[in-house]
Amino acid sequence: MRMYDLILKKRDGGELTRAEIDYFVSGYTRERIPDYQAAALLMAVFFRGMSSRETAALTMAIVNSGDKINLESITGTKVDKHSTGGVGDKTTLVLAPLVAAAGAPVAKMSGRGLGHTGGTIDKLESIPGFNTNLEPDAFIKQVKATGIALMAQTGKLAPADKKLYALRDVTATVDSIPLIASSVTSKKIASGADAVLLDVKCGSGAFMKTVAEAGQLAAAMVDIGKLVDRRMTAVVTDMGRPLGRMVGNALEVREALDTLRGGGPDDLRELCLTLGAHMLVLGRLEQSTAGARRRLEKILSGGEALRKFRALVEAQGGDAAVVDNPDLLPAAAVKHTLLAPDSGFVLSVDPMRVGRSAMLLGAGRMTKDDKIDYAAGIELQKKPGEPVSKGEPLAVLHTNRQKSPDEAAAVAEGAFVIGRQPPDDRPLILDTIS
Amino acid sequence: MRMYDLILKKRDGGELTRAEIDYFVSGYTRERIPDYQAAALLMAVFFRGMSSRETAALTMAIVNSGDKINLESITGTKVDKHSTGGVGDKTTLVLAPLVAAAGAPVAKMSGRGLGHTGGTIDKLESIPGFNTNLEPDAFIKQVKATGIALMAQTGKLAPADKKLYALRDVTATVDSIPLIASSVTSKKIASGADAVLLDVKCGSGAFMKTVAEAGQLAAAMVDIGKLVDRRMTAVVTDMGRPLGRMVGNALEVREALDTLRGGGPDDLRELCLTLGAHMLVLGRLEQSTAGARRRLEKILSGGEALRKFRALVEAQGGDAAVVDNPDLLPAAAVKHTLLAPDSGFVLSVDPMRVGRSAMLLGAGRMTKDDKIDYAAGIELQKKPGEPVSKGEPLAVLHTNRQKSPDEAAAVAEGAFVIGRQPPDDRPLILDTIS
Repeated sequence: MRMYDLILKKRDGGELTRAEIDYFVSGYTRERIPDYQAAALLMAVFFRGMSSRETAALTMAIVNSGDKINLESITGTKVDKHSTGGVGDKTTLVLAPLVAAAGAPVAKMSGRGLGHTGGTIDKLESIPGFNTNLEPDAFIKQVKATGIALMAQTGKLAPADKKLYALRDVTATVDSIPLIASSVTSKKIASGADAVLLDVKCGSGAFMKTVAEAGQLAAAMVDIGKLVDRRMTAVVTDMGRPLGRMVGNALEVREALDTLRGGGPDDLRELCLTLGAHMLVLGRLEQSTAGARRRLEKILSGGEALRKFRALVEAQGGDAAVVDNPDLLPAAAVKHTLLAPDSGFVLSVDPMRVGRSAMLLGAGRMTKDDKIDYAAGIELQKKPGEPVSKGEPLAVLHTNRQKSPDEAAAVAEGAFVIGRQPPDDRPLILDTIS
Repeated sequence: MRMYDLILKKRDGGELTRAEIDYFVSGYTRERIPDYQAAALLMAVFFRGMSSRETAALTMAIVNSGDKINLESITGTKVDKHSTGGVGDKTTLVLAPLVAAAGAPVAKMSGRGLGHTGGTIDKLESIPGFNTNLEPDAFIKQVKATGIALMAQTGKLAPADKKLYALRDVTATVDSIPLIASSVTSKKIASGADAVLLDVKCGSGAFMKTVAEAGQLAAAMVDIGKLVDRRMTAVVTDMGRPLGRMVGNALEVREALDTLRGGGPDDLRELCLTLGAHMLVLGRLEQSTAGARRRLEKILSGGEALRKFRALVEAQGGDAAVVDNPDLLPAAAVKHTLLAPDSGFVLSVDPMRVGRSAMLLGAGRMTKDDKIDYAAGIELQKKPGEPVSKGEPLAVLHTNRQKSPDEAAAVAEGAFVIGRQPPDDRPLILDTIS
């Protein structure tokens, strides 16, 4: 087999066989295939796409490039969850203890991620003492004991994905649906999931801008699941506005705690109940999403979800007092309130600008080596559809950075559009694919 | 400027500016842009193409990547000629002395090339003593003194082309019209041509299989000429059969000598007169191709072209006795005659098989380091359209290789298709673009 022939075949619209895809992925991971040939193939894939069979073969080749976590010793269907990412997306912090409290074993690996705020792992680490660096054995033992564990993804899982992503990142081949779909699902499969609930974000604050694009990505991932024998359901959800009111690591933990207590912002609660219901169905704990949802609502109101979160914090060495007293979370030295320049209704809040502002305040990282300020972020006082009077607070910016948050404030202010009439309602759940 | 942005722009169908193309070519040549980013851009170009302006900018960026030969001190318009390559294509050996005898200064650089036989330079080197490694100064001096010089292209000319071609060769991005067009024309411009006659071969033995494809490549090159102020005419000619009857280095010199003497095969003579007429028009020595052709016919019949060839051989240290006695050229130890298996008419002679057979006999090189056997090759006794009787010679294979030429003979035999009825006539000149 020659890499040249694979490039030519894909370039001319042919379908690569599983053996050819294995040859490429294993050869590239072992540095027997040079970057330039991989780059040419990736660009050809960008233009020609991949069939479901090719995408599934690519997924499994990536899975097989490294270690696989074996969760078979844990009783029950292991349902994982993945979000394609958005601003204020703290869903996992609520969803994991919520479905664990319903009896679904949660053995979840998460990433840190670059961007406006950290990933789930960074958010959890804003809880003093919380340890996310578990060994696989301890991780599995904890799930057996408490029903829940969350650990940072290790580099030994799906190394081909890491190497391919780094190359895609510098060759303008990131936004290819089969490449995204295989990247996401391979990591879930390598970390031992039997089933996966996919939250595909859609809108100005997401990678996928339109429902059609998000639906294509969702369908590609669900198709992979069918071909590799993992149950997958994808829900396309709105990311045309930030999720909830809090953006920033400790701020998001605080909002997750409110939600676990039965309160929290409507959109976050609604999303967690919807996704959680699908997870219980995927985990064969419920037959219908309606029944699953009723069960989850009871768990929230009964305090079981909050208890499960406390058990998680305790098991991983965190300060459990935070659960009842969120003021123990890191707090920012500077709080800057943004005032409404006009009266009317908030028509929209641009999530990208909110994210960029949070980044400027210190909530995110640009490169792997940047340090996150857990306390930094933005608290939205007004969300789309809400009335506002001139001079009322729109948002509070939290930061520890020395210099005044002028730039971050200007960026955040630019996120708000105020008008005379309230905007039309936007649905949060846009599509469901399984 | 960032290479990433150039890849993205081209990937999404944008038009690169001259500054962007200069940035890419100079950065890549100086190894400041990595192979993988260049490969991604080349594949994006394969899919998106390039506008005439982009192709012209790429051409000049390649020209500017290295030395340029300055031919201004030579009086008259310097008309160069390029063939995209075919089997039995010894045109330059006839054309160069022919147009030089008509008064067009010929200061020509040629390549060696990989494949079934060597390039023009290898063919000339089959003449004992012929030196193709001239210094630019000596080269120009010779043109001034004798009106003609032919030298091997130096690596200092268009180094970006060499580097890009090596990358295209391993990333399945060779067959892109703007990339081919800029590669061909950049080398001609760097070697000092004021005008260029392009012989774009078309058919089973050529890179371009259809008249439409060949016409596109021809038009792309003529368009470059217009944008960079070099007069160019392209002639699309048939390569559905070998040109002439001889394939192999010394054998082709022998056939060129026959043609220069006023004889030679009809197709070779016709092609040389057609291309030569365009060259005289490009060189402003004639106003019409009809008038130019009449002049070239007289030059051939008057022996002036042969005399010019002799002057060329003498000037470059070759054994001029070869001109009158071609038996002084290297001859093969083994001559194997291929007999017709049937009676009828030769319907076709597949140039690719003839080329492969010549290669097996030792006439070509697979890699830069292979040594060519100048004496090796094939003499076609029958050409398409000619009647043949069973047992009559179809071809004679010439070789010095130890082992019997069974494989080469089988390949050559497979090139011939014999049928009952004579085939339709095929035109040699398919299109002219200027």
